[in-house]
Amino acid sequence: MGSSALTARFGEAITKKALRSYLAEFISTFFFVLAVIGSAMSSRKMMPGGVAEPGALVVEAVATAFALASAVYIAGSISGGHVNPAVTFSMAIGGRISLPTAIFYWISQILASIIACVILKGTTAGQEVPSFGISEEMTGFGSSILEGVFTFALVYTVYVASSVDPRNSVGGPGLLGQGQELRAIGPIMIGFVAGAGVLASGPLSGGSMNPACAFASALVAGSFRNQAVYWVGPLVGATVAGILYDNVVCVSASQPSADSTALGF
Amino acid sequence: MGSSALTARFGEAITKKALRSYLAEFISTFFFVLAVIGSAMSSRKMMPGGVAEPGALVVEAVATAFALASAVYIAGSISGGHVNPAVTFSMAIGGRISLPTAIFYWISQILASIIACVILKGTTAGQEVPSFGISEEMTGFGSSILEGVFTFALVYTVYVASSVDPRNSVGGPGLLGQGQELRAIGPIMIGFVAGAGVLASGPLSGGSMNPACAFASALVAGSFRNQAVYWVGPLVGATVAGILYDNVVCVSASQPSADSTALGF
Amino acid sequence: MGSSALTARFGEAITKKALRSYLAEFISTFFFVLAVIGSAMSSRKMMPGGVAEPGALVVEAVATAFALASAVYIAGSISGGHVNPAVTFSMAIGGRISLPTAIFYWISQILASIIACVILKGTTAGQEVPSFGISEEMTGFGSSILEGVFTFALVYTVYVASSVDPRNSVGGPGLLGQGQELRAIGPIMIGFVAGAGVLASGPLSGGSMNPACAFASALVAGSFRNQAVYWVGPLVGATVAGILYDNVVCVSASQPSADSTALGF
Amino acid sequence: MGSSALTARFGEAITKKALRSYLAEFISTFFFVLAVIGSAMSSRKMMPGGVAEPGALVVEAVATAFALASAVYIAGSISGGHVNPAVTFSMAIGGRISLPTAIFYWISQILASIIACVILKGTTAGQEVPSFGISEEMTGFGSSILEGVFTFALVYTVYVASSVDPRNSVGGPGLLGQGQELRAIGPIMIGFVAGAGVLASGPLSGGSMNPACAFASALVAGSFRNQAVYWVGPLVGATVAGILYDNVVCVSASQPSADSTALGF
Repeated sequence: MGSSALTARFGEAITKKALRSYLAEFISTFFFVLAVIGSAMSSRKMMPGGVAEPGALVVEAVATAFALASAVYIAGSISGGHVNPAVTFSMAIGGRISLPTAIFYWISQILASIIACVILKGTTAGQEVPSFGISEEMTGFGSSILEGVFTFALVYTVYVASSVDPRNSVGGPGLLGQGQELRAIGPIMIGFVAGAGVLASGPLSGGSMNPACAFASALVAGSFRNQAVYWVGPLVGATVAGILYDNVVCVSASQPSADSTALGF
Repeated sequence: MGSSALTARFGEAITKKALRSYLAEFISTFFFVLAVIGSAMSSRKMMPGGVAEPGALVVEAVATAFALASAVYIAGSISGGHVNPAVTFSMAIGGRISLPTAIFYWISQILASIIACVILKGTTAGQEVPSFGISEEMTGFGSSILEGVFTFALVYTVYVASSVDPRNSVGGPGLLGQGQELRAIGPIMIGFVAGAGVLASGPLSGGSMNPACAFASALVAGSFRNQAVYWVGPLVGATVAGILYDNVVCVSASQPSADSTALGF
Repeated sequence: MGSSALTARFGEAITKKALRSYLAEFISTFFFVLAVIGSAMSSRKMMPGGVAEPGALVVEAVATAFALASAVYIAGSISGGHVNPAVTFSMAIGGRISLPTAIFYWISQILASIIACVILKGTTAGQEVPSFGISEEMTGFGSSILEGVFTFALVYTVYVASSVDPRNSVGGPGLLGQGQELRAIGPIMIGFVAGAGVLASGPLSGGSMNPACAFASALVAGSFRNQAVYWVGPLVGATVAGILYDNVVCVSASQPSADSTALGF
Repeated sequence: MGSSALTARFGEAITKKALRSYLAEFISTFFFVLAVIGSAMSSRKMMPGGVAEPGALVVEAVATAFALASAVYIAGSISGGHVNPAVTFSMAIGGRISLPTAIFYWISQILASIIACVILKGTTAGQEVPSFGISEEMTGFGSSILEGVFTFALVYTVYVASSVDPRNSVGGPGLLGQGQELRAIGPIMIGFVAGAGVLASGPLSGGSMNPACAFASALVAGSFRNQAVYWVGPLVGATVAGILYDNVVCVSASQPSADSTALGF
């Protein structure tokens, strides 16, 4: 990309509309991290002996599902509702958003996450902010794979939710949700897939699936142990999800034109 | 505003249609408070030693989410589904509803909350009605901020849900939910955001986000300790959410058509 | 009503379409009771000492919410998705369905509930089937009121869900869900309101809100203690909900014609 | 069916579009099994003494509901979102998909399930993968019946969700969801019905309702005890659901247009 094209891209990235997108990402990520990390603090307060139990996992997973669904919902029509650097990374790789926009999205997401954790620490008179960690028996490599596959599922769902389109419908009886009606529940599905990920991976690899949330809680908690797990796995998983969706599963998304029948639709 | 204009506004506030709105707010808030305070009594009954555990937080949060979603749903097309004085306050500040209407909404909401708590006390043969409280380590100021930011998220979601509109769509590929389809899930999202708020702040600042519910339970429980936390935080958070949404995020929402003010909504 | 009119009504009640309705009510109520009573048996198996805890309440409430939402959904377009004699009773009183149809609905619902409980007893090699009961401190009168107000909320939601209609919309900015979009989430809202009811009233009055489910489990468990609580409260609450909705909240539902403006819409 | 017709059917089964369907089934089933079995491993890690409690059942059921809803959602418009050999079996029996397609769907589903379990075993450094089992007091026959009736409910819901259609509406006041709006929430309802099934049958018969998931976990766990329960019950229940729905409940669904058989779906 030439330097003038890059400048033009950068110009687009600071229009009024673009600035509103960054604000939307900021608000949504701020609320999401507040809910996820806050609920971890809350469930810890309810088991004074510090003995983990399945109920604490339900607290974490339901908070993640509810908060992510609403965070995506409230930002959806403004910024696309990424709320996650892994989603933004994948969309930048796939050319769905420009690189400067992606960088501003990342800055908004990470800044919002840090401020959310600082507010939690501040308002609770300095109580310990929990950070994501892997279980003793797990290796960093195994944990990265788990975080990666669940982020794959999350990002894949984001792609489906933002592409559901009557033109892509393959029709026929017995097929669910051909088209537009399914758009309506996109944010709920994104919340659900993240909640399922926490239930399945929380006590094993940590269940973050969101580098901004993992980074900010580690920063405020002062512990970057195994931080790579929460970046490598999710970014790779997200990239694979985007490439697979755009190039294999839903090839028509880029050419929904007259020759769609010729492509095997 | 001149006194005759105020009289005209007041006249609008007692039409048949308006009275139905107050009834709708009454029914929804009554059910919501019954569910929230009732579930706190229920979960307490299930742990005789009074030992808190994460499961009790799940009970509270899921009751809040389910009840608020349905309460908003059943009042939605009649009164707008505020079910919360903080929402009404924010909409009055932003000019979305007139002051007299807002006052009648508040009266309906607070009266409904008190009656719900009285019925719970009466039908359970005088069992103690729980009220919202802050954890020992928390300060009133910190708790107000927490209640404020979660009410911000709740009211912001209410604004998004009541404004989702194809005209406001900013379009582009990769963007979720441009428009009308997303209206359908508005009440669910409002329930989810409140549920996430309870999970994150319940054992810290109480997790009320609703002054009517906090006031009524305090009144029936006979304890107004830290009551200011449940008014200052939520009202400020709600106001900021409304101002931010109407003036920065979604500037077109404040002028949907010239005569919207004339309708008194 | 003359005897020939009654015969005509009865004739309508046994058409092919009507028979399908009864089958739909049978299937949905069968599944609903299987899920509600089955989950009570399951959660009891997971606490061998029989010590209640909030987690067991979550099991019951989520099973009720999930099962009722799906039960209403699968019967919705065939029979209206009553799945509950209290709903049918209210709709018969309000003239929404004829008396013979209501009787056949009741028979289907009660028969399905009994068969569900028998199957649970049979397949689990005679394990005890739990029945609904009130807590020691509660009176029958107080419990009836609690069951009544939560059934009121449930039936009111059913009315809203089956009446949401663009013609009834009162419009204006700041109002949620004007019209058709909200139909989509009706079954979810009905499930949520029932789930909130269980969370709030389960350990107090039993949290049934469904006479068929309460009757069948009592029959198979062999204990009719306080059975009246699960009939009087719900039937009265359901009737009040229907009358209030049809005559006060949504008067146009019966006359959605040209003069709707004249009525104050 | 003549051999040339079979060859033609087989030809259809390996088109580009068909291959995408198998991939969609693979991805969805992979994620579903990862979530279901992963959450069982996670909840076991949170109760070191191995003492079951209701919270663990909530973990399992919510993971199933969230994961199945999203798995159906992301595959819905590509493959119909079966994610379950029992669904595919029923649709093949009912002529909704051709036999070769059904076989490829089964292969995709079972392969995906095995790989999911292998990844869980691999990434957790060889921790034990749990398999489905029946409670001590239960018989294999009783368990098969329970698994069968809950699979019946699941598959019946799948049929309703994929057939909701204005043409099939029977109309009339008081009826919920006539038509298209309800398509939107189909995946959520399928998730909810499965979640309710787990809550009701988990500690009794295992609560699988999915032969691929039960088989793969048994294979990786090395224990095929009572495996028949997870095949006989679900396949019979699924078949009965399909036959009942297509021939009794919704007779018009089997002839949506003359050439539907020709499409192979």
